[in-house]
Amino acid sequence: MPELRQNRVTKEWVVIATERAKRPEQLSVKRDVKPLPAYSENCPFCAGNEAQAPPEIAHLDHAGQWQIRVVPNKFSALAREGEPTRKIERSKRTMNGVGIHDVIVEGRQHNLTTALLSEDHVANIFRMYKLRYDEVSRDPRIQQIIIFKNHGGTAGASLEHPHSQLIGIPVISHQVRERFEQALRHYDEYGECIFCQMIKEELEERSRVVIESEHFVAMEQFASPTPFGTHVHPKRHMASFGDINEAELVDLARVMKQLLAKLYYGLENPDFNYSIRTAPAENAGVKYYHWYISVIPRLTKVAGFELGSGMFINVVLPEAAAEFLRNVKVEQQAAAGK
Amino acid sequence: MPELRQNRVTKEWVVIATERAKRPEQLSVKRDVKPLPAYSENCPFCAGNEAQAPPEIAHLDHAGQWQIRVVPNKFSALAREGEPTRKIERSKRTMNGVGIHDVIVEGRQHNLTTALLSEDHVANIFRMYKLRYDEVSRDPRIQQIIIFKNHGGTAGASLEHPHSQLIGIPVISHQVRERFEQALRHYDEYGECIFCQMIKEELEERSRVVIESEHFVAMEQFASPTPFGTHVHPKRHMASFGDINEAELVDLARVMKQLLAKLYYGLENPDFNYSIRTAPAENAGVKYYHWYISVIPRLTKVAGFELGSGMFINVVLPEAAAEFLRNVKVEQQAAAGK
Repeated sequence: MPELRQNRVTKEWVVIATERAKRPEQLSVKRDVKPLPAYSENCPFCAGNEAQAPPEIAHLDHAGQWQIRVVPNKFSALAREGEPTRKIERSKRTMNGVGIHDVIVEGRQHNLTTALLSEDHVANIFRMYKLRYDEVSRDPRIQQIIIFKNHGGTAGASLEHPHSQLIGIPVISHQVRERFEQALRHYDEYGECIFCQMIKEELEERSRVVIESEHFVAMEQFASPTPFGTHVHPKRHMASFGDINEAELVDLARVMKQLLAKLYYGLENPDFNYSIRTAPAENAGVKYYHWYISVIPRLTKVAGFELGSGMFINVVLPEAAAEFLRNVKVEQQAAAGK
Repeated sequence: MPELRQNRVTKEWVVIATERAKRPEQLSVKRDVKPLPAYSENCPFCAGNEAQAPPEIAHLDHAGQWQIRVVPNKFSALAREGEPTRKIERSKRTMNGVGIHDVIVEGRQHNLTTALLSEDHVANIFRMYKLRYDEVSRDPRIQQIIIFKNHGGTAGASLEHPHSQLIGIPVISHQVRERFEQALRHYDEYGECIFCQMIKEELEERSRVVIESEHFVAMEQFASPTPFGTHVHPKRHMASFGDINEAELVDLARVMKQLLAKLYYGLENPDFNYSIRTAPAENAGVKYYHWYISVIPRLTKVAGFELGSGMFINVVLPEAAAEFLRNVKVEQQAAAGK
């Protein structure tokens, strides 16, 4: 018998379709992909090609040369200059599309994705996220900041060179408003952060936990809409990513590298997205929200049922996905030079 | 300057990215797809292969043989038998995955998609939707019914033979709850159905209207999250698809055939989904909701920003999409044997 599960925060139902169930390894797609070169002549993000990208906004060095670089997105979705004026005309609501759209170049080499970088290197990526987050938060026009990564064509990446993006928008998205409303309702009823409660329960149950570190826990979502939907939560209550401290940042980099390496080796380098789901700056101190990173491997397709109902059919049991990922031995695979 | 637009019903903001803007025809993908055969030996939906599919639930005849056939989905997401028992355990909410999952086979031939069928034939497809909708509505376990079509691999279709699906679920999805809440709020504030108001304004403005018939209007969404997101609304206020009458049904078939043919010829047979967004049976009479069909060509990819924020970046101006579709001359193309 299939099972319906409800997401505790969004209230969305998901069908865990055991009749259609697949073993996790059945989803790994052996794609006929050529290995990437270490350097690509026409790549604006490769070391040596800096002039092909717009002028640099920030960088972090390693061993006397840049390791992480931030540039404006050449094909920005939003205009960097201007005021976010609202217009109301009959039932139409519009606003000038002003905002920030950065690209964070994650390294000098064309072919080194997060799973293959050193922990120190990954820590610098997250350090740069934090630097840019703090900086963009101070722009009075910006109400919400989304930091995200697209890895692979299915995940929407149009450039191969490992990079992530930051978009600062002049509104608060309805998705955030909605989640805040639900989380606040829970807080008012139970006097506790719904995420803190969930993390506590999950750490007792263990069946969906993939990695537990000093400061973070990576776990499969109980009601994941898609296979291997994984959340990485800080254990300490914090509404905003901006409140992460240096020790937590180093620990987070370790957990993210480990998690992405488990996906890389376990599911044959799947396309994926991750995004940091943080409270907007104006809600940084609230007791009812808790930031996290959502990692979504792009293993299945969204079809008419999902679009028509907002409900998803997930063909992998989250507990099976967690067990599968726990058993992927990253160090052995890396040592074998895979 | 890009523009942010807010969806009137869902309150979701969309970035209309004019800097990245594409002309509508740039999105048509000339795919190297082999034409389908009229009959395929291993297809369970082709005429002559009826025994390969599960036992028939219903059919409609034409010229002495079946034209439309309904069978249970062989790989059903939900169990047809059983009771939808809820279970609450700590913060987890689950339910038995019972429900109805039908396949509606849209014709005897393997290669005739909606755009290429006669209007009478398409009317029978919609007649069958209505028959099954009415029947499944009477199942006391079913709270919501989603009728949808996946056309092409990108849209999640795993079988080529033209078919649509009906899923009846034992809960009301959060998406519906949310839209109802917003629509009700509007009704309480303005004393009118938000959809009726929108249809009236759009018919005055005309810039986003693609097809207007006696009973229906097909139009590009003002704040469409993706290119060519088109809604087909009945002009008469009706919350439930179940309340459509025979004259409207025939007219709807004509509009849908016309619209899908415009996509077929204008954008080179793109993959698409459509779904009927109707009020649940228990809300059939409400004054604040208005059913419609949402048609979504799958021309672009969903990436990390969309997943991380719930906001979309649309690279085609809805007004340009509407103008493009208005100019696609279906009859001429069909006559030219394309």
